[in-house]
Amino acid sequence: MTPGDESHPTGHHGFTAIVLAAGKGTRMRSDLPKVLHAIAGRSMLGHVLTAVQEAGATGISVVIEPERTDVAAEVEALAPGARVHPQVERLGTAHAALQAREALEGGADVIIAFGDTPLVTADTFRRLSSALGGGAAVAVLAFEAADPKGYGRVLTEGGQVVAIREEKDASEEERRVRLGNAGLMALSGTHALRLLTRIGNDNASGEYYLTDAVALAVAEGLRVAVVSIDEAEAQGVNDRVQLSVAEAAIQGRLRRAAQLGGATLIAPETVFFSADTVVGRDVTIEPHVVIGPGVVIGDGCAIRAFSHLRDARLMDNVDIGPHVRLRGGAVLEEGVHLGNFVEIKNAVLHAGAKASHLSYLGDAEVGAGANIGAGTITCNYDGVNKHRTSIGAGAFIGSNSALVAPVSIGAGALVGAGSVIVRDVPADALAVARGHQKTIEGLAKSKRGAMLAAKAGKSAKG
Amino acid sequence: MTPGDESHPTGHHGFTAIVLAAGKGTRMRSDLPKVLHAIAGRSMLGHVLTAVQEAGATGISVVIEPERTDVAAEVEALAPGARVHPQVERLGTAHAALQAREALEGGADVIIAFGDTPLVTADTFRRLSSALGGGAAVAVLAFEAADPKGYGRVLTEGGQVVAIREEKDASEEERRVRLGNAGLMALSGTHALRLLTRIGNDNASGEYYLTDAVALAVAEGLRVAVVSIDEAEAQGVNDRVQLSVAEAAIQGRLRRAAQLGGATLIAPETVFFSADTVVGRDVTIEPHVVIGPGVVIGDGCAIRAFSHLRDARLMDNVDIGPHVRLRGGAVLEEGVHLGNFVEIKNAVLHAGAKASHLSYLGDAEVGAGANIGAGTITCNYDGVNKHRTSIGAGAFIGSNSALVAPVSIGAGALVGAGSVIVRDVPADALAVARGHQKTIEGLAKSKRGAMLAAKAGKSAKG
Amino acid sequence: MTPGDESHPTGHHGFTAIVLAAGKGTRMRSDLPKVLHAIAGRSMLGHVLTAVQEAGATGISVVIEPERTDVAAEVEALAPGARVHPQVERLGTAHAALQAREALEGGADVIIAFGDTPLVTADTFRRLSSALGGGAAVAVLAFEAADPKGYGRVLTEGGQVVAIREEKDASEEERRVRLGNAGLMALSGTHALRLLTRIGNDNASGEYYLTDAVALAVAEGLRVAVVSIDEAEAQGVNDRVQLSVAEAAIQGRLRRAAQLGGATLIAPETVFFSADTVVGRDVTIEPHVVIGPGVVIGDGCAIRAFSHLRDARLMDNVDIGPHVRLRGGAVLEEGVHLGNFVEIKNAVLHAGAKASHLSYLGDAEVGAGANIGAGTITCNYDGVNKHRTSIGAGAFIGSNSALVAPVSIGAGALVGAGSVIVRDVPADALAVARGHQKTIEGLAKSKRGAMLAAKAGKSAKG
Repeated sequence: MTPGDESHPTGHHGFTAIVLAAGKGTRMRSDLPKVLHAIAGRSMLGHVLTAVQEAGATGISVVIEPERTDVAAEVEALAPGARVHPQVERLGTAHAALQAREALEGGADVIIAFGDTPLVTADTFRRLSSALGGGAAVAVLAFEAADPKGYGRVLTEGGQVVAIREEKDASEEERRVRLGNAGLMALSGTHALRLLTRIGNDNASGEYYLTDAVALAVAEGLRVAVVSIDEAEAQGVNDRVQLSVAEAAIQGRLRRAAQLGGATLIAPETVFFSADTVVGRDVTIEPHVVIGPGVVIGDGCAIRAFSHLRDARLMDNVDIGPHVRLRGGAVLEEGVHLGNFVEIKNAVLHAGAKASHLSYLGDAEVGAGANIGAGTITCNYDGVNKHRTSIGAGAFIGSNSALVAPVSIGAGALVGAGSVIVRDVPADALAVARGHQKTIEGLAKSKRGAMLAAKAGKSAKG
Repeated sequence: MTPGDESHPTGHHGFTAIVLAAGKGTRMRSDLPKVLHAIAGRSMLGHVLTAVQEAGATGISVVIEPERTDVAAEVEALAPGARVHPQVERLGTAHAALQAREALEGGADVIIAFGDTPLVTADTFRRLSSALGGGAAVAVLAFEAADPKGYGRVLTEGGQVVAIREEKDASEEERRVRLGNAGLMALSGTHALRLLTRIGNDNASGEYYLTDAVALAVAEGLRVAVVSIDEAEAQGVNDRVQLSVAEAAIQGRLRRAAQLGGATLIAPETVFFSADTVVGRDVTIEPHVVIGPGVVIGDGCAIRAFSHLRDARLMDNVDIGPHVRLRGGAVLEEGVHLGNFVEIKNAVLHAGAKASHLSYLGDAEVGAGANIGAGTITCNYDGVNKHRTSIGAGAFIGSNSALVAPVSIGAGALVGAGSVIVRDVPADALAVARGHQKTIEGLAKSKRGAMLAAKAGKSAKG
Repeated sequence: MTPGDESHPTGHHGFTAIVLAAGKGTRMRSDLPKVLHAIAGRSMLGHVLTAVQEAGATGISVVIEPERTDVAAEVEALAPGARVHPQVERLGTAHAALQAREALEGGADVIIAFGDTPLVTADTFRRLSSALGGGAAVAVLAFEAADPKGYGRVLTEGGQVVAIREEKDASEEERRVRLGNAGLMALSGTHALRLLTRIGNDNASGEYYLTDAVALAVAEGLRVAVVSIDEAEAQGVNDRVQLSVAEAAIQGRLRRAAQLGGATLIAPETVFFSADTVVGRDVTIEPHVVIGPGVVIGDGCAIRAFSHLRDARLMDNVDIGPHVRLRGGAVLEEGVHLGNFVEIKNAVLHAGAKASHLSYLGDAEVGAGANIGAGTITCNYDGVNKHRTSIGAGAFIGSNSALVAPVSIGAGALVGAGSVIVRDVPADALAVARGHQKTIEGLAKSKRGAMLAAKAGKSAKG
């Protein structure tokens, strides 16, 4: 921490978060609004909304581009009840914050955050809030820059911020200051609205800069505190290179948490989690695994390489992969085993069921201990509707079988290899549906001869 | 840039490139000539030939090991019309360059490049050429070395090169110079042949060193300029560790270009492009994707993890993977969807066609909006010849079907699950080819009992 | 090397290794003992046992937690004949080493190593042993720490160790020493037992510290040498983050060795070897490959992306992947080709055999030059027993076939696509086992209409 850091992670009180999320994001070169670009399966805006809620925000206001129903929907999804304010004109950050004037009028402490600065943690928001609790009128977020060039410098005296100096206005001595301004700011409820409305636009670009609140507060004799974070946490996202840098930072946090919680990641740098992934103890994840949103992994599970999971629940001691794909509501109960090239969609596999090779189980229920042979496919779609397949406990489905849904295979039933099952099979019954084998001696030899002759003839003509 | 850098990226004129590509490459431990080892799907020599052409070379001469028809063929493929000169004796770089005497006799400016220094960009070649245009007789390529130990030092005075000093001959003061010699050199057409032929071999190893051209030019009172690059760009490849370092550098450039062009690479460090890959805007590429030569990806596409593409064209809004394999002339039109464990080879899928699971479509045409069920296989090979499969628009191929080519499925036709289709199916017809289901109650139970008994008997005997 | 380094990699004599392997490993958060956690497919303890054996240890004693039969079994597996000593009380490293008192009584030189410090190489153990051979009574292992904070400092004078000072006891000047104590120690057979038994526990924690042997030796006027290694090699493993750091270090060594031996790893950082992997010359390994224990790869092989191998042998010029899975005794002879989504288990494929797509071959033998069509599955399991499939040389198995084992396909035989083969097929015979194709004109159209109508009706009601 920097001298003058006044954050106290405990003892904070509530605050209102104003999240500025109306940026155009031209450098993203995208039709999608910048703040909806995702990191670890969650939009950048979502990360900010999650962090401020976790930090105890008592109100959230999001300033968005007008008519962006997609951004408004994201706000509603991740912070139900948050208010959305359109920003019609682009006149600077202070002006943008004032679009959420309602939030400022309530008199609560305010933290102004940015929808494209997704790495700021809940702990940091708590520290900003606590700095106000400690008596500051304003708290700015700052970081020691490896190379401060281009950043606004946070100038301190006796631990108090005296100014934020933009690079172009800085003296030579000031340029040597390495404490950079991260942009986020907390304002005491007593002063927030007054300070923000006092900010003017008498500058080269004619914009209202949030940063100017610092000079105003200092001029009024108010205390301005600084809360310091790592440079990495302060980074914003303006293009897709920066997006991938932020992704790497979030992944690093998720991986480390999983490891310290008792999961072996043989090569953490090749495993990708979602922000909501839950990983148990004594889990082993091999290299090269991608986990999308909605995945819970129980204790003792093994996830082998090249597996791709989303919207799936694995209970304890499940062993899957390599090359497994789970999606759309896959539930694997205790001890289930899935081998290579197996896809599970919207299906429950009860305890100890196995599907070891080259199978697709969709819209299905598989009983405990059932064995699904290699190449088994549930034919769940008829081109118009989806239908369900039910396989009883202890059933054995022979390899290369097609189960044409809706269909039910009873407990303990046996389906012969290569069968196309179109009618229900009772418990303990055997069902076979395949052609009769005809073997004609010598025919392969003569047929091959004919094919080769034909080929030679064709070549001769061609 | 280093003081004295005289490159001017614009205003250059033409030049002849002499590429030295006869190196033995013993440390590669390979039967393949060193310069044919590939980076991003293109040989090292190919990278150099591409860069000099892009920089505007008006002539290209490549000095190769005699009788290496593979190297000569690579030259012809990547720089049609370039001349190839055999190097019979190995007497040093100046001697090697003189094997392309024809190129030197023309009087054009000359740039001497190396087939095993593949990272030098077209822009750098332009800057070398421009340095001559600016009046220098010779321009050397140099870099600030983090640790100059082992490199020849480029000694400058008043911005002009006065000498290149080998490490062993350098004074203590000279060893502190960090400007290292990259080896590449540009020579004005007025002086090139004379300088090169004046180089002697009166040194410890008895070799003719290209570097000596600098001392000769300085002695003649000619100007010698320096063009500076990053140390990374100057690196040559002598073993497979260095080959992988060069690969990483090229991949870094390709990834960054794709990102800045509007593609989201969630984990750029896990995505591998080829030098010729074309990536559209608002494309998302998940982690762990490998793209070989000949791939074009349209706008709005999603390439999911564990996909492997080469020689394939994806039009806009195509969504493939995870675990998709494209090769040999795969064309996916607008909106095509491919799911997991699907391989496409030499096949066109028209707009909106879908193959979601465990399929192989080879030598095929699939109509717009057709749905290919899980486990569908085009049986395109009879052991001797390859045959084509045609599937009409809107057709529905039931799961686990085998389409024995040559065969045609009409538009809107429906193939029942588990069918083996050996004859054409007319439009809107339904075809089924599978065995009749026989279900025998109780047989699974008794059969399992018998198997278990047999096993127990065997164990008892064994 | 540090001044005073007395190691001489040649000329060493034998030594007894005492490996301390009883650590609780609480921070691993695991039910598995810490030393059994694996790196590159081999337990940490296994790495240490392998290194000391390779360094020429003439005896090995392992101190383990009592009743840990799993640890004892690992010792027996990796160092047959090694002695195992239970450590009942936890009273410090010197006390732990004395549990192997037998080993100390023999009078041989002793090296005390740690089961959770798995990166120390055989060469380092040799250098420790040689330092004793050079006349030292004790040799300590040390490293130049980037940041020595927290490490015990190795204090030297005239090249001899005079003390190891714990951080808390160090003077300001001593804290500036960057030579950190790695913990491992070699003791001359003449002095080992006496020094260890003289160590007391008169310190804050009441433990017997191995480190105290240094002060005792110095007090006796004996020489104490230092052997220096890189900081990375000295690292121990206490949690799963550190485990992954150690994994990365070992993988780095394995990759580099493969590359320098003549294998192209396009992206070495994405390829994972096991400690025992053997890789030939002119092998190409694409990005994203995972190789488990027991794999041998011959010259000229290509392993494409997303392949997962273990317990497999590839002879020369084998070309597999992408998306291949080998396991359980797969043997691929010269020139075998496997394509995508193919799994081989406990099967021998003779020279030139091919399986290009979506197949599972388990418990099988495939003859030279045989062609296995896409979607072929050996049905090797009947729910109770595993059975074998034999396919003759030059046989052609049509796509989507199921071979119900036990079954034999003769040389040159041809199996029609989509067949379920339940009886042996003689050489050169043709076998087909599938349903007859019925095609009903117009039925697809009317059926689809009915399905859509039903759906609409359902929606209307729902």
